[in-house]
Amino acid sequence: MGGDHGCAVVVEGVRRALEADTKISTLFLVGDQAEIESALVATGCHDLRVQIVHASEVVTMNDRPVTALRKKRDSSIGRGAELVHDGQADAVISLGNTGGIFTAATFKLGRITGVDRGCIATIIPRQENEFVLLDAGANIECKPLHLAQFAVMGSVYSREVLGYKKPRVGILSIGTEDSKGNELTLEAFKLCKQLDLNFIGNIEGHDLFKDHVDVVVCDGFVGNIVLKTCESLAVAVFSMLKRELVRNPKRQIGAYLAKNAFQAIRRRMDPEVHGGAPLLGFNGMVFKAHGSSRERAIASALRVTADAVQHRVNEIIAREIVSANEKLAAAGISIPASA
Amino acid sequence: MGGDHGCAVVVEGVRRALEADTKISTLFLVGDQAEIESALVATGCHDLRVQIVHASEVVTMNDRPVTALRKKRDSSIGRGAELVHDGQADAVISLGNTGGIFTAATFKLGRITGVDRGCIATIIPRQENEFVLLDAGANIECKPLHLAQFAVMGSVYSREVLGYKKPRVGILSIGTEDSKGNELTLEAFKLCKQLDLNFIGNIEGHDLFKDHVDVVVCDGFVGNIVLKTCESLAVAVFSMLKRELVRNPKRQIGAYLAKNAFQAIRRRMDPEVHGGAPLLGFNGMVFKAHGSSRERAIASALRVTADAVQHRVNEIIAREIVSANEKLAAAGISIPASA
Repeated sequence: MGGDHGCAVVVEGVRRALEADTKISTLFLVGDQAEIESALVATGCHDLRVQIVHASEVVTMNDRPVTALRKKRDSSIGRGAELVHDGQADAVISLGNTGGIFTAATFKLGRITGVDRGCIATIIPRQENEFVLLDAGANIECKPLHLAQFAVMGSVYSREVLGYKKPRVGILSIGTEDSKGNELTLEAFKLCKQLDLNFIGNIEGHDLFKDHVDVVVCDGFVGNIVLKTCESLAVAVFSMLKRELVRNPKRQIGAYLAKNAFQAIRRRMDPEVHGGAPLLGFNGMVFKAHGSSRERAIASALRVTADAVQHRVNEIIAREIVSANEKLAAAGISIPASA
Repeated sequence: MGGDHGCAVVVEGVRRALEADTKISTLFLVGDQAEIESALVATGCHDLRVQIVHASEVVTMNDRPVTALRKKRDSSIGRGAELVHDGQADAVISLGNTGGIFTAATFKLGRITGVDRGCIATIIPRQENEFVLLDAGANIECKPLHLAQFAVMGSVYSREVLGYKKPRVGILSIGTEDSKGNELTLEAFKLCKQLDLNFIGNIEGHDLFKDHVDVVVCDGFVGNIVLKTCESLAVAVFSMLKRELVRNPKRQIGAYLAKNAFQAIRRRMDPEVHGGAPLLGFNGMVFKAHGSSRERAIASALRVTADAVQHRVNEIIAREIVSANEKLAAAGISIPASA
């Protein structure tokens, strides 16, 4: 219910995903029953794997997540998370309020044993491949242990879902030397060195798009700013390009001939293809798709999330977090009881 | 002495700047006398305003700034800063080690009365204009007062040098609502609201390239990461574009016809034109040019810095910082004795 383009676009994405994917056994569409039914009719989706779960309320973009989850007892994101909690579904995908999804994951699913903070991992495309940035905004103030656990979870996701054999993990800082960083990153650096990671140390903003690092770890404040800055700059460059290319007929002809080149890059950077973010550390897979997702992005979110379930990402995270916590405890680092 | 392209490129930039600028009365070239002399001969620079000040040492990129400034008593950046301290020069420009420049400014010039921390302000181009981001990396851990003072100094620079009548000042955060941010930005927000600024509140990464804000305030950790991420992404987009444009003859012809459009954007984003960063808050103008600066960038750095001197930026900063501190003190905020 939370997408910008309404229910029918989501349903059409679902239809396409189901057509392509035989491994999904049941697909619950959670939200206003009447609206979903008419979208199913409109898109001609008759797949028997689809089940509607009615939910009468929506957590909107203007809602305060915690309050909304408490007050709107029949919200679609709440109901979706409950399906996972009750074991009826393996994963929940939402296009809605990110805070709402994170809150639903925290309260309805709970964290994997040993995980002190769940996080949002965002997948950012670059020339040849893509990297994971986490946390992308859920945890504004972090402790070193959180960053170390993000490193473990991001590494698992990168390996199991994105297919990187030995994901290179770096801490986003302001210099590559071990001694560069703020209090948080310097401590997190020490923890990461203790762990079974392909830890390459500190990385800088310069390194992000250079294929130097596959998993970029930072607190949610920095991560959110970096993510949004990248989106904003990419849009700005394309808009400048467009303006310059129509300035005179010669350029216009040039642009027409080179059209496919621009389209290739746009596709490469397109949130429609790569966009969306798994929430990691919860008992159940949770995936946040862009609010602006259209059919293709919905289908892609379904495919990626089904992949993550298939690869038992959460079981692996659970195992590796336990082992990471043990290593850290053995090195004298105290693991809070909440983890 | 600190540039990547050697002394002759710097001297040629200086020659061009002097040719264009009649307001500069003396230009000291600080560094190895023999090298500078031969560069002057090679570039045919006979301007009588040029004076050589010999310095036998260089703070290199590998030096630790504080140690280097202490040990290398005859470093070019140290000597340059001394010229300003002694009143012989109004400003010093360097292409060298940023930490070295900042340290020289701190120890040799000292801070303007009332300023608790000097900072690096970087000027970032966007479609129509440019914005100031500060601090860009000098102060890794900041207090709210520092951010408030950066806001004042950035606002003065934007107004007096970049020509913005009422620069819009924003705090870089993860949401535009007043309540969004981390401990530092939330407190800094309250301080900025007390001041005579065109304070527009919190801004997000999304806003940077949208002409929503002219002065972007953050701590040096976040600022450095944002700056380097932007540089890295811009380079990546152009490199993707280049690769796509040569993929087949049709695209190549298109690219040839539209060539000027790409050049226009490259020029717009080029650190050669816009690059470089004033250090604000010191008794004397200090300007850090890119290490990779070529002739045009050197000339541009000289022009901008001469402008800042002409506009008495430091006197205005001194005045506005005193008034800002008074306002904050009246609102019950304690101003440390060091400021």
